[in-house]
Amino acid sequence: MLRFALLISLVAGGLQAASASVAALMPMPLKVESATGQLAIDGTFTAVAAACSDARMEAALSRLTARISRQTGIPMGIGQPADANRPTLRVECVAAGSALPALGEDESYTLDISADGARLKAATGAGTIHGLETFVQLIAPGADGFQVPAIHLEDKPRFPWRGLMIDVSRHWMPLAVVERNLDAMAAVKLNVFHWHLSDDQGFRVESKRYPRLQQAGSDGRYYTQQQIREVVEYARNRGIRVVPEFDIPGHTQSWLAAYPDLASVPGPYTIGRTWGVYDPVMDPTIEATYQFLDAFIGEMAQLFPDPFFHIGGDEVNPKEWNQSARIKEFAQQHNLDGAHGLQAYFNQRIQKTLEKYGKTMIGWDEILHPDLPAAAIIQSWRGAKSLADAAAKGHRGILSSGYYLDHLEPASQHYSVDPLAGPAADLTPQQAALILGGEACMWAEYVSSETVDSRIWPRMAAIAERFWSPKDLTDVNSMYARMEAVSRTLEWTGVEHRANYGPMLDRLTGGQPAEPVRILADASQGLGLGPRARARKYTSLIPLNRFVDAVRPESESVRRLELAAARFLASHEAGDGALLREQFTRWAANDALFQPLAEGNALLAELKPLSKDLSILGGMGLKILDYLGGSQPAPADWISAQNQELTRIQRPNVEVTLAAFRPVRVLLDELARKGR
Amino acid sequence: MLRFALLISLVAGGLQAASASVAALMPMPLKVESATGQLAIDGTFTAVAAACSDARMEAALSRLTARISRQTGIPMGIGQPADANRPTLRVECVAAGSALPALGEDESYTLDISADGARLKAATGAGTIHGLETFVQLIAPGADGFQVPAIHLEDKPRFPWRGLMIDVSRHWMPLAVVERNLDAMAAVKLNVFHWHLSDDQGFRVESKRYPRLQQAGSDGRYYTQQQIREVVEYARNRGIRVVPEFDIPGHTQSWLAAYPDLASVPGPYTIGRTWGVYDPVMDPTIEATYQFLDAFIGEMAQLFPDPFFHIGGDEVNPKEWNQSARIKEFAQQHNLDGAHGLQAYFNQRIQKTLEKYGKTMIGWDEILHPDLPAAAIIQSWRGAKSLADAAAKGHRGILSSGYYLDHLEPASQHYSVDPLAGPAADLTPQQAALILGGEACMWAEYVSSETVDSRIWPRMAAIAERFWSPKDLTDVNSMYARMEAVSRTLEWTGVEHRANYGPMLDRLTGGQPAEPVRILADASQGLGLGPRARARKYTSLIPLNRFVDAVRPESESVRRLELAAARFLASHEAGDGALLREQFTRWAANDALFQPLAEGNALLAELKPLSKDLSILGGMGLKILDYLGGSQPAPADWISAQNQELTRIQRPNVEVTLAAFRPVRVLLDELARKGR
Repeated sequence: MLRFALLISLVAGGLQAASASVAALMPMPLKVESATGQLAIDGTFTAVAAACSDARMEAALSRLTARISRQTGIPMGIGQPADANRPTLRVECVAAGSALPALGEDESYTLDISADGARLKAATGAGTIHGLETFVQLIAPGADGFQVPAIHLEDKPRFPWRGLMIDVSRHWMPLAVVERNLDAMAAVKLNVFHWHLSDDQGFRVESKRYPRLQQAGSDGRYYTQQQIREVVEYARNRGIRVVPEFDIPGHTQSWLAAYPDLASVPGPYTIGRTWGVYDPVMDPTIEATYQFLDAFIGEMAQLFPDPFFHIGGDEVNPKEWNQSARIKEFAQQHNLDGAHGLQAYFNQRIQKTLEKYGKTMIGWDEILHPDLPAAAIIQSWRGAKSLADAAAKGHRGILSSGYYLDHLEPASQHYSVDPLAGPAADLTPQQAALILGGEACMWAEYVSSETVDSRIWPRMAAIAERFWSPKDLTDVNSMYARMEAVSRTLEWTGVEHRANYGPMLDRLTGGQPAEPVRILADASQGLGLGPRARARKYTSLIPLNRFVDAVRPESESVRRLELAAARFLASHEAGDGALLREQFTRWAANDALFQPLAEGNALLAELKPLSKDLSILGGMGLKILDYLGGSQPAPADWISAQNQELTRIQRPNVEVTLAAFRPVRVLLDELARKGR
Repeated sequence: MLRFALLISLVAGGLQAASASVAALMPMPLKVESATGQLAIDGTFTAVAAACSDARMEAALSRLTARISRQTGIPMGIGQPADANRPTLRVECVAAGSALPALGEDESYTLDISADGARLKAATGAGTIHGLETFVQLIAPGADGFQVPAIHLEDKPRFPWRGLMIDVSRHWMPLAVVERNLDAMAAVKLNVFHWHLSDDQGFRVESKRYPRLQQAGSDGRYYTQQQIREVVEYARNRGIRVVPEFDIPGHTQSWLAAYPDLASVPGPYTIGRTWGVYDPVMDPTIEATYQFLDAFIGEMAQLFPDPFFHIGGDEVNPKEWNQSARIKEFAQQHNLDGAHGLQAYFNQRIQKTLEKYGKTMIGWDEILHPDLPAAAIIQSWRGAKSLADAAAKGHRGILSSGYYLDHLEPASQHYSVDPLAGPAADLTPQQAALILGGEACMWAEYVSSETVDSRIWPRMAAIAERFWSPKDLTDVNSMYARMEAVSRTLEWTGVEHRANYGPMLDRLTGGQPAEPVRILADASQGLGLGPRARARKYTSLIPLNRFVDAVRPESESVRRLELAAARFLASHEAGDGALLREQFTRWAANDALFQPLAEGNALLAELKPLSKDLSILGGMGLKILDYLGGSQPAPADWISAQNQELTRIQRPNVEVTLAAFRPVRVLLDELARKGR
């Protein structure tokens, strides 16, 4: 209890006060005790494993060294033979753990660091892998070079299922995208990669049994079975389970392009190019469907060793079933309650197939039905209530509602969602124990392989903390400060969330200096699925190469300005005032630099009103600062006019919002308050 | 002549006046005629080849499509079947050309673009590849999306040998570094990759005949023969010859670590870790040396198909030969003129071996000697004079003096060096024709795989233009404007010269917001080999992870400020004045933001004086602007004091210079002139 109190005080005290040792930790460990001193990280760095030493652990340690070498820029492992008896980091574990990462295995570890060396202890290989990532996060430049602080740390996860789903159907994600995201997932201790492998817009796995699936259903963009095995192994080595999803019986137009006979209505069908819920669904009334799926699932069950198998089951459009006399008659004959009953019948059949191949079914919350076998796991995307309902009925469940990364909501919003809050808070302890954790979802209507990383990271790290760390860790400022630090260390995993920002902005100017575009982008935030779908008719063929695609979901610099504005009002520090004034001056001046760039350039021309608004905001901010600093009060009608202007400016435009309005709003509200 | 006049007027008129079509062309083509209209580049883009269609050309076209898709962000080749009869780009060539790129083959091409389509014609596959790169450089965002302008373009290179040498010995460069640089080389029409594969600090090729070379001489960091073959093929597909260099008889300590019996003095030897010229050299008097090298060269001659083979021969330290009675006696017996005579004897023996394996010798200018066979090619690194001397003696030659990228000199300086200027200007036309071109050299004492790209690019593009374009193309402002544009398009080849800047700065702050460090870095320029060697004792084990390693050799933003300062003085445009004032204000304010970051951080603490100087510069610049804009003249002693301060500030510090002094210097000089 004492230890936990220390942690809380570290976090609650804010980062200025906290020891630097926790400044880049995310997810925050269960217990952290700082000590004095530090351990140097230099070219002699070595890590050795005892007890749990096997091929996987050796590979993990050599990856660790390579990553630390990248992160610090220090060459390691050449010309400086280390003392094997005194390694920098000694890893001990009780047992290597299961050959594959397994749901519910012991993931705990302890880490002790002193000036003499570091010791990591874990019950299993999984715990070891998490501990190594904590060690990496602790590395920072110090007075004598790179170092980790002396520390005692005890850690284990709150939930056993901590996942990220990536949709590779709507936009194709090459192997490299998957692998670099697995590295980043491991860095924040996620342990489930949910691979959404098929949808209306593409079937992404090679089937040897039904090769037309990839031939007619993928535009040639699919993973070979060899690549799938590579990913499974890659994930395994990072303590991550791979759960495949083949979404049936809806969201299957790409299957039907290859095998139209499985459809409820005669084809032909083509690969979907638009977004939304399609009419075509598999025919649940014919034996051919079940024979096909039996053979297919049998093949995939071999390819994916995890005991869980996701069958989707979401958004099954009842239209064709309801319109078909034949299918309605089948439903009546079998006493099925309309479309939902037909889907339940379908699921029961599939469940038997899965059982035959040793797999446990997972599905989206639409599969919940009185006839659903209790073993099936429910993934709740429509709301926390369906998760609680499922648990109340004895189903295990995972929460995804509230963790939809493609909505591009702020990290703080996802961070506030707890799998055991809301309706789940009323469950009995036994029922609550059925809630295994959560998964963030990266649906791919509005992301490409170039933009997907920046839509996952760094916000995913905040969600990972929600899944791992104690429930009462809720300080948003601490979260943001640590998330921004982790965002930078994540660069060394290979994930491109920061790297692609500059090139995508450069692209817009066609090689001309992009600074005015960058200033506008830094002041903006990209919008997600809903607003984008309303803004224009997108398809998979429309390029995601515009300003909105480059712009980040959250602006780090605007958040800092917002904090500066609040601090300035509270304490009138000159530094904050100067920072605000400098930034407002840049914004005010930016439009004059932006407009010439936009001439004759379609990609920039659409941003002209946005750029103008940013300069208006800059001018407004400067004027408010003048009023706040002067003796003259601001006229009430001026304040009112600015209020109106601000309300106009904060509305979405060209699929982004001008986040820059926020610090100006903070200041204007204060001016209005003073005027009253 | 008319056409050429048009080109010159485009260039001389500056980019504001020039049509956008040449804005990103580098090297500048021989003849450019703009027309009206443009060709849209969208998702239906297709390229087809006639006549020269073979597997290599098909691969080139599919790489082209992929690259254009990356550069524009437009998905290509899915769901939008193009009209095969009306491709976007039609490629025609007379013949596919030789199976391997060959010295002196016809590399010319013509490119015609209209609103209906583009047509590329070339005599060989090599010319085609160059024309495709020109096409890519022409793509820019226009009023209706991405496009290329209607244009007629005729092009061919001035020199047949246009190379880049990369040293992979002193710091190891993994395969990915080599391959991405080959892509960037092809983008600026370079055609020789000179691979410096061995030196005192590492032997980097797998030898099956003498495996101890890589086992004892490489720290495990070498290319397998399979990888070598992959690189040769990769280069071939991009029209690039691969010339291997195995530097003998000096610069061989890594060989001697494996085979000490080849040395002039008994071993043992270890891999070199420090820089400079080592004492150990091979023994030129024993037959074992020649037997070893015969078998070794025979093996490598198979691996590298190019007819040229580089034997180094530079900086052979005469010390051990001069001190050995045995070796001196050998020299006397063979009538050899001391150490240089011994090296000439050695070279004649090696020349015979090379001849036996069908190879022509290249060496650094030290190999020049009356006994050197005329067929040998001289690569001049010690000065243009040795190149002219060699040509006068009938040797073909290539210039590297003046193109040493590791000196981190400005692009303008390299750009001003011409292989046919200086002493070579006095050669007869026949002698001048022996000068085949030039090679830039990237020696690796002060670069790692992380920093090497930013030390090569974009300055290499300016040198490539010197090798390709007409001699009288010398406008430096046009060069810089186009080089900066090409620097951005080069990002899409995969080269990381821009990408690694941000992460390396982030590394210095350990995850904290790095903006003040970035402002300091943008205002600074990294220094090269000489100043770095004087600053501290470097070895291959010392990390290249400091500010100097992140900072660019040239600052784009400072160059723009310098231009703005000159324009401001000439025309007093308010925009330029505002730009200068804003930048000076940022610099002035930056030190206060920087200093707290540097507390307890060794990587930043060393920059404290530099940061202070930047703020002094900012303050000085603001004050000068005040004087220039006011009626009050600046006191003479104030000007004199600022002059002194500026002289102090422009001196190197922490291995960088504060480029920011330059615009301030421009303004201060004007103030001083006015005061007189």
